[in-house]
Amino acid sequence: MVQFVSVENMVALIRDKGIENIIVEIANRIESDFKRWDEFQKQPRIPAHSENGVIELMPTTDGVTYGFKYVNGHPLNRDLGKQTVTGFGVLADMETGYPQFLSEMTILTALRTSATSALVAKYLARENSKTMAMIGTGCQAEFQAYAFRALLGIDDLRIYDIDDDAMDKFETNMDGKGFTITRCASTQDAVKRADIITTCTADKGNAKILTDNMVGQGLHINAIGGDCPGKTELDKGILLRAKIFVEYPEQTWIEGEIQQLNKDHPITELHAVFNGEEQGREGDSQITIFDSVGFAIEDFSALCVIMQMTKDSDYCENIDLLALPENPKNLFGMLS
Amino acid sequence: MVQFVSVENMVALIRDKGIENIIVEIANRIESDFKRWDEFQKQPRIPAHSENGVIELMPTTDGVTYGFKYVNGHPLNRDLGKQTVTGFGVLADMETGYPQFLSEMTILTALRTSATSALVAKYLARENSKTMAMIGTGCQAEFQAYAFRALLGIDDLRIYDIDDDAMDKFETNMDGKGFTITRCASTQDAVKRADIITTCTADKGNAKILTDNMVGQGLHINAIGGDCPGKTELDKGILLRAKIFVEYPEQTWIEGEIQQLNKDHPITELHAVFNGEEQGREGDSQITIFDSVGFAIEDFSALCVIMQMTKDSDYCENIDLLALPENPKNLFGMLS
Repeated sequence: MVQFVSVENMVALIRDKGIENIIVEIANRIESDFKRWDEFQKQPRIPAHSENGVIELMPTTDGVTYGFKYVNGHPLNRDLGKQTVTGFGVLADMETGYPQFLSEMTILTALRTSATSALVAKYLARENSKTMAMIGTGCQAEFQAYAFRALLGIDDLRIYDIDDDAMDKFETNMDGKGFTITRCASTQDAVKRADIITTCTADKGNAKILTDNMVGQGLHINAIGGDCPGKTELDKGILLRAKIFVEYPEQTWIEGEIQQLNKDHPITELHAVFNGEEQGREGDSQITIFDSVGFAIEDFSALCVIMQMTKDSDYCENIDLLALPENPKNLFGMLS
Repeated sequence: MVQFVSVENMVALIRDKGIENIIVEIANRIESDFKRWDEFQKQPRIPAHSENGVIELMPTTDGVTYGFKYVNGHPLNRDLGKQTVTGFGVLADMETGYPQFLSEMTILTALRTSATSALVAKYLARENSKTMAMIGTGCQAEFQAYAFRALLGIDDLRIYDIDDDAMDKFETNMDGKGFTITRCASTQDAVKRADIITTCTADKGNAKILTDNMVGQGLHINAIGGDCPGKTELDKGILLRAKIFVEYPEQTWIEGEIQQLNKDHPITELHAVFNGEEQGREGDSQITIFDSVGFAIEDFSALCVIMQMTKDSDYCENIDLLALPENPKNLFGMLS
């Protein structure tokens, strides 16, 4: 039997344990998994593109456990009243090859993305950062807010979205949760006084959500939305003034903001920063950018946390996915 | 909700509909999908190797439907009393990216492998082939036997396995099912009088299950067991005397019997034979070899057949794998 965490159980788990506690556990696991970077088999995700979007598989293994995520990205789904991103994930035992764990990952992807963002900001943002501008208040926004409060203590948020309904939604969801939220009239307005800017918009194409003049010295930019070929959010001028940090260069060159740069432009790998092999921020005036695209190890880490957390609990079911005949040579015997 | 076919329901479906009927439907679908070869996105499977075996993802899409299989191959599992091959598969809608269908594929893989073998033999074996030698009577054997009877009318089987228990198991399972089964003392003995030889053994390494002197003119060899890097079953001399047919060259060169040959050795692609673009067998004295490794489109075809067959029936359940908030921008709202 395979341990299965449904959407309903994921929701119950998050409610019961507290979203910030779960985000912290996932962030800790991502940090420790990135620190043992060389133990993982790594590859860019495997895409199947269509006119409307992409379906991707994201496998990795540390030699003991194998994990992969199925995820789609379909921006046009919004117009159909559907989710632009959905997903599920699997863990398996490398020794036997048996799948062990299946989980919804639409919600879990939002948790791991926010956990990664805040973890990276803990390393890269200026000490005593207090205010975050959030450009785009769609599906990811609340998760990002909770993650930055849980890991950095940031509760002062300046939000902007081109869609008023998305800002209404954000304010309603976060009402009474202890955040100070300032609704802004423009991106320009939102980034005023910010120590950190999170960009998370869903437009396809080379957008300029942030233009060069908006970005002052010392900012940390958490750039989430530029995450597939031909989709970026930042003006190239910002990239040229900043120190850029990435998860896995082989994938980020294909999907991230650095698509806009020459391949010899210097970038710094986060695992090396976590391990103290590379410097993070080089002074309070430097602009740092996390060119986030999402990497398979983050999903692996998140799945491992949820598998452990739900094992032998009411938060999971067993599903009959794995045909295991008593005599392994007698698969056919199962039919009689 | 995602439509889910469990092991229990797959077993019930096969019992109720009849294994030969299902194999025929899968073979027909594989044939028609191979005939529209150019509509599919194709790539070799994506492996994660360990000392004990391999876990693989096998994705493909025809632009309308996306499918992938998770499958492992762990020969040492036998010694642990476990299955060497297990699997599950998924279909999704390319337009929205939503997963639609999840199914066990340990049993279904055996069905699709046997359907492919028999379909290919229908094109390549000599007309009026009557007798099949089966070398290796493990997990695949009964499925192969049913497939060759369903598609070619072959019911005269000469079996050999180094493991007496495996032959006992085969004879017990097939008792009273209308086959004539001759238990042989050796491979040499089994291949006598055979029109078709199916090799399906699980050893790693470059085995020589068939040596050159065993293979007479006009035989068709259905070589299933040589299916990963460094694992082959046929003496190279046989390959040099035969016309060799493959599913997808990019994958077969890595995994199949033709690993043993120079890359410029001629091979023929099955889809071209099915479409009449390439000749199959060139006369009754020619030896033909299907260098079978298993390709993603076969899994896609099998999953499509089972999805259609079980839709809105008691053979499937709905599982709560897909988080779909009412307002697609309000994923977080699902938590409150």
